[in-house]
Amino acid sequence: MSNAPWERLSRRKFLEASGAGLVTSRLAVPTVRAQGPGEPSGRKIRYALVGLGRLAIGQLMPAFASCKHSTLAAFVSGDRDKALKYAAEYGVDPKNIYNYDNYDTIRDNPEVDVIYIVLPNFMHAEYTIRGAQAGKHILCEKPMANTPDDCREMIATCRKANRKLMIGYRLHYEPYTQRLIELAQGGVGQLKVVDASAAFNIGDPNQWRLRRKEAGGGSLMDIGIYALQAARYLTGEEPSEVNAMEYSTAGDPRFKEVEETINFQLRFPSGVLANCVSSYGVSYNRFRAIGDEGWAELEPASAYHGLHLRVSREKSVDEPELPAIDQFAAEMDHFSECILNDTEPKTPGDEGLRDLVAMMAIYEAAKAQKTVTLAA
Amino acid sequence: MSNAPWERLSRRKFLEASGAGLVTSRLAVPTVRAQGPGEPSGRKIRYALVGLGRLAIGQLMPAFASCKHSTLAAFVSGDRDKALKYAAEYGVDPKNIYNYDNYDTIRDNPEVDVIYIVLPNFMHAEYTIRGAQAGKHILCEKPMANTPDDCREMIATCRKANRKLMIGYRLHYEPYTQRLIELAQGGVGQLKVVDASAAFNIGDPNQWRLRRKEAGGGSLMDIGIYALQAARYLTGEEPSEVNAMEYSTAGDPRFKEVEETINFQLRFPSGVLANCVSSYGVSYNRFRAIGDEGWAELEPASAYHGLHLRVSREKSVDEPELPAIDQFAAEMDHFSECILNDTEPKTPGDEGLRDLVAMMAIYEAAKAQKTVTLAA
Repeated sequence: MSNAPWERLSRRKFLEASGAGLVTSRLAVPTVRAQGPGEPSGRKIRYALVGLGRLAIGQLMPAFASCKHSTLAAFVSGDRDKALKYAAEYGVDPKNIYNYDNYDTIRDNPEVDVIYIVLPNFMHAEYTIRGAQAGKHILCEKPMANTPDDCREMIATCRKANRKLMIGYRLHYEPYTQRLIELAQGGVGQLKVVDASAAFNIGDPNQWRLRRKEAGGGSLMDIGIYALQAARYLTGEEPSEVNAMEYSTAGDPRFKEVEETINFQLRFPSGVLANCVSSYGVSYNRFRAIGDEGWAELEPASAYHGLHLRVSREKSVDEPELPAIDQFAAEMDHFSECILNDTEPKTPGDEGLRDLVAMMAIYEAAKAQKTVTLAA
Repeated sequence: MSNAPWERLSRRKFLEASGAGLVTSRLAVPTVRAQGPGEPSGRKIRYALVGLGRLAIGQLMPAFASCKHSTLAAFVSGDRDKALKYAAEYGVDPKNIYNYDNYDTIRDNPEVDVIYIVLPNFMHAEYTIRGAQAGKHILCEKPMANTPDDCREMIATCRKANRKLMIGYRLHYEPYTQRLIELAQGGVGQLKVVDASAAFNIGDPNQWRLRRKEAGGGSLMDIGIYALQAARYLTGEEPSEVNAMEYSTAGDPRFKEVEETINFQLRFPSGVLANCVSSYGVSYNRFRAIGDEGWAELEPASAYHGLHLRVSREKSVDEPELPAIDQFAAEMDHFSECILNDTEPKTPGDEGLRDLVAMMAIYEAAKAQKTVTLAA
């Protein structure tokens, strides 16, 4: 916690830049004092990371150094030695290390405000529900859960517990993505077509992402969801119809249980049509929004670093450069601000649920070999 | 006609470069003397252009200057003044100008070997059939016709008349496309996904391309066919299944009769899945072949000039530059060589028929909202 002048300045600039708008004074959690408009807080929201895998270690732990409103306070892990090692590295008090058995006792720890769920997909629902019931706000990685029903239960539980729930859709908080959305929604004329491809060539055949019970599905649940997200946020609409085609290479040990590739088409109410690639078999990561006056694209589009924007209008192609940021810091700080100001996250549980519903429709369309209609 | 040494050399180089292989000595047409292997011919095949529209005037007439084996000999046009004007400009003997009424008398003109049909789609079948019956070889623009049945009749008539039939798929004769095919079929690892988009923002609402009877359909027949072609030539396979979604902007005077956008998915027997965009509402022209070791793409992909190749392997992107050629000259010279050597064109009538069958399946899939299976 700091009230240094530079930090107050940073906070004010951040609020202006993010267009956070009105800031309410309603208290979010007892341990947090919300501030009035223009009254910067030195208070940082304190995070427990649940699940010390590659994302937590490689991205989230280092991201806190770039956070203005978020700090790393606790770990939940089945591997105490690992937790102790990273606790020492990042200054986490060893008394704030939990395991999956004593996880619920985190309710008694006033030094934790948010639980960030970074577990395999099938554990998201349980750990979100238990975490909210322990009185903590929840930031949960995508996909939100393995089924829409799990998502609904997560949303209902957080609402009942009066805890906030946000899904870790980091790209919503990332400047290139925000610019691409602006371009799609007015910068390229009337938007008509979206091409969104999210794919990588997955490695180790034994990882949980390739087991149906753990992952809930294959490439779509893990990486294709980025293409679905892109089609949704670039249009600003919900899909009304879905087509899909699925393929998995026979004999490839990675795809015994889950799909390798599932490409899909989406229709949006405005008439925009999206073609999307989802694959664990190739590397391909590009979102393009095509309007009747030009197009804008990111490639790579969902990498942690190095996003590259190209904008084509009147036959010339521009490549705007935006400031590089830590995407996870921006994501966590957004949630922290929502808690500090008692506002709703841009990517709440409902956003995660909408993706799950659409993904189930994509799987159904591929299986039934027909267009599946989504309820408005 | 010329037997100048430089032209013989050019011919030999062309044959080597094109890998033409064995050259037979069977005669193709009475006015043409076929040559034995390694025995270059100074003979140029003589073309009649049927239909003096934008493609004929802007591309084909100037292309003959770059041809080694093809020369412009005649016009068929409903506008004699226009024909006379271009005859003067390109040195066509005015006695070789025909109209649509006396078209069949071209049979009596020994100065014409090939009829190149550059008419609106719905006239392709009739003018191909009449042309073959007049004893001429036929080069016909894409789409081959408006229905598969018309294609079959065109093929049967040419076969019966012992005349060659080629469809004007110029990209098959274009070096960047040939390189992209090589890359797709071995240069990017195992090919798994093809993204092919062919679209332009069409102008004048009163043109024949926007009338169903004349054009046979909308964007798919005219420009989306390039995306279909790309998926087919990049895989080297025929699609087994098709999905599609169609959209036309309500109230847009261009799309009263035909579709604006029809995006489609194709499954190929090897497992490759293709996502394709076909639209008259936006400009978008890119073919990408994605394998498990990289990708290769052309953007623009089907323009007359300025094709741009990018190849991504091992995280680096190369942009190979190939010699610029006149695509139409290459296309016509290929057909001329087929006539000189009595070989089958790379893009015969069967190739056009396959596209028509696939396009009908794409329309059916969009209409029925289900996957349509294509016969092997």
